[in-house]
Amino acid sequence: MTGLHPALADPALTSMNFLNEIAQHYPDAISFAAGRPYEEFFDVGQLAGYLDRFAAHLRDDLGYDPQRVTRTLFQYGRTKGIIHHLVARNLAVDERITVDPESIVVTVGCQEAMFLVLRALRADDRDVLLAVSPTYVGLTGAARLVDLPVLPVATGPDGVDLVDLVAQVHRARAAGLRPRACYVMPDFANPSGLSLDLAARRRLLEVATAEDLLLLEDNPYGLFPADGAARVPTLKALDERAQVVYLGSFAKTALPGARVGYLVADQRVTAADGTVSLFADELAKIKSMVTVNTSAIAQAVVGGRLLEHGCSLLAANQRERAAYARNLRLLDAGLAARFPRFADGRRVIDWNVPAGGFFLVVTVPFPVDDALLERSARRYGVLWTPMHHFYDGSTPVNALRLSISAVTADQIESGLDRLAALIRDALERPPAARRPGSA
Amino acid sequence: MTGLHPALADPALTSMNFLNEIAQHYPDAISFAAGRPYEEFFDVGQLAGYLDRFAAHLRDDLGYDPQRVTRTLFQYGRTKGIIHHLVARNLAVDERITVDPESIVVTVGCQEAMFLVLRALRADDRDVLLAVSPTYVGLTGAARLVDLPVLPVATGPDGVDLVDLVAQVHRARAAGLRPRACYVMPDFANPSGLSLDLAARRRLLEVATAEDLLLLEDNPYGLFPADGAARVPTLKALDERAQVVYLGSFAKTALPGARVGYLVADQRVTAADGTVSLFADELAKIKSMVTVNTSAIAQAVVGGRLLEHGCSLLAANQRERAAYARNLRLLDAGLAARFPRFADGRRVIDWNVPAGGFFLVVTVPFPVDDALLERSARRYGVLWTPMHHFYDGSTPVNALRLSISAVTADQIESGLDRLAALIRDALERPPAARRPGSA
Repeated sequence: MTGLHPALADPALTSMNFLNEIAQHYPDAISFAAGRPYEEFFDVGQLAGYLDRFAAHLRDDLGYDPQRVTRTLFQYGRTKGIIHHLVARNLAVDERITVDPESIVVTVGCQEAMFLVLRALRADDRDVLLAVSPTYVGLTGAARLVDLPVLPVATGPDGVDLVDLVAQVHRARAAGLRPRACYVMPDFANPSGLSLDLAARRRLLEVATAEDLLLLEDNPYGLFPADGAARVPTLKALDERAQVVYLGSFAKTALPGARVGYLVADQRVTAADGTVSLFADELAKIKSMVTVNTSAIAQAVVGGRLLEHGCSLLAANQRERAAYARNLRLLDAGLAARFPRFADGRRVIDWNVPAGGFFLVVTVPFPVDDALLERSARRYGVLWTPMHHFYDGSTPVNALRLSISAVTADQIESGLDRLAALIRDALERPPAARRPGSA
Repeated sequence: MTGLHPALADPALTSMNFLNEIAQHYPDAISFAAGRPYEEFFDVGQLAGYLDRFAAHLRDDLGYDPQRVTRTLFQYGRTKGIIHHLVARNLAVDERITVDPESIVVTVGCQEAMFLVLRALRADDRDVLLAVSPTYVGLTGAARLVDLPVLPVATGPDGVDLVDLVAQVHRARAAGLRPRACYVMPDFANPSGLSLDLAARRRLLEVATAEDLLLLEDNPYGLFPADGAARVPTLKALDERAQVVYLGSFAKTALPGARVGYLVADQRVTAADGTVSLFADELAKIKSMVTVNTSAIAQAVVGGRLLEHGCSLLAANQRERAAYARNLRLLDAGLAARFPRFADGRRVIDWNVPAGGFFLVVTVPFPVDDALLERSARRYGVLWTPMHHFYDGSTPVNALRLSISAVTADQIESGLDRLAALIRDALERPPAARRPGSA
């Protein structure tokens, strides 16, 4: 068989595979690569409890008879989901976002939410997407699958370089292209760790309005600020003109094994024949041909967890929030202890100190390619992610991403020892030997 | 917002919506429309038992430690799934299909399996798909989403008109197109109820080999033969040249609420750079950008049900199989009682007697459009599906599909009384009045 869709040969799709394979090949390495949530508090025994709690909600709160409860869990169901009302309540409680539950589509993880939106927005080959660069590789991969080019927008000191954003939009339009939306992760972005402050969010919304540009706000990490950092309202909470499609995940706040995410799409869509519909309903039509509906059982588990905590994931994640904040603190301190400043205040390597989330970027004075990662795994027993995977193309970048979400305090210390040994080794090797196999 | 992907205005996507809306609007109507499985034997209490059974399998059969059991259920997981070995065992036990578990991708229902295959096969605008017509609307909808035209292949007395199939392939190639595959449901097809006998299957495989055409075999109903009907080997069981991609569903044999299906893709793919890979691995790369992986919890529920019955769904569905066979018998007898033959052996209406499955097609001497369905629901309290939804275009067809999967014996009797009243009424109305609003 030959001649499959070209996305299959694209770095966006092969990246994910390569990174997974390295992780599987070195299962005993300490992983600063994995973005998966902390698992110390997972308990298989909870699952039945969550199912029971959700079934009780259907019976006691919604008044379903036993047959309807069974049907809701076992049969095909509503395309837009069966926990939409609980998601709406969660958004109100934790994010002060007020939305009509009908504008929510529960999806198979946030990935499907992104995929549905990109599929809808890509009508023909004039359409392009903007994305703040470096970008989550799952966004780029989904865009490749629907043949939607992604134009990178520069990261500025405020998270997004708005001058570059406007320039990109104007340049695309001048070339006959249609910039459909800009993808942004305003809270503790993956991979950069950067956040937008309140003023930057307001300016971004103003630019989006002025340029008639949809914003795709992806918010998997917003519940996890660093020690002492304040949470900032989401773009969707500030959105007065339905300029924002909100992409939500329960992978980090409930459990990835459910594969339940959602989107909020309260925009009005006008079809060619003049009929007006809700964007969420159009996206549900696409979903009906991709996955039909999200597993009712998986939704019930997430619904049960929401109900156990009054629909507050802030409350549900108190221990996890403390663990992530502690890990970020330990990682920053551990790096500082191993790479002290020179007298002039500079360091041999540098890193950002994010205001929260899972990720921190270390900048080094040499290119970081996949061969170096392989060497790190094999010889030093430590995994991380080369930053070039988050940029278009495959040119190595002098930076690597560290994730703190799936390591213990002890692992952070020994992982940093291993990383420091790798970095020392890479600094001492002659430049020619540093990049075996790279272009 | 305007200018979304054109599939959103396509009958394939609007059909599903319309049919769902009618069903929701008339919840008390007797439904010969729903293809959902019989629900009398569903029991919410079973879910926790299935989860336990699967966790015990991970621990006792696969030797996982408790931490790995928890991680398997709670965390992100293998893109190709965690019950692939059980699916392979099920195929061996129930279908005598022998496949390497590595060639299996567990998907979010059979719909995602179809979607992934069509996405991979549609590389550019020369690619086309063939499908035996009338066709399951979910296939057509998925094809629309990846901009893949579907060329209808005629249904013949043997299920597929092979002369037409070859003619279609040759005509497409002569026009510079690439027919990538032919979609077929060889067992009790939705919507036609038709099946291919063993000889027809062998001939279809020969034609596929001669024409270098992939066959997409969709088999949701194969476990449900009518009374006395024998099961026939699947195309995949007869497939000696990796000509068949097998699409599997657990919606009818386990529970739709899990949204777990799978595909078997043991073909070798050669990329432009000469590297060879397994088609299943290429499809998994696409899946990683659509849904990441199938819910581990949903897979565990299905896995537990498989394990409870020695991986035999034939064994697991003894009661369901008897119920479906009984319902098919009652429907045929009920139609015969209400619409006796004339002295010349003909009937005012006619229907096929399928060798199994969920569906039977009634042919009537008047066009069956959506307005008639709406009238049937509102005035007669009975739902069914106009056959035109399974053909390209929206011209009404003189036929309707009846499903026996979600009705009781009593409902079949009263549903048929209502249907007979509707048909008598439609026959007595002048032709002009029969088709309000239709073209």
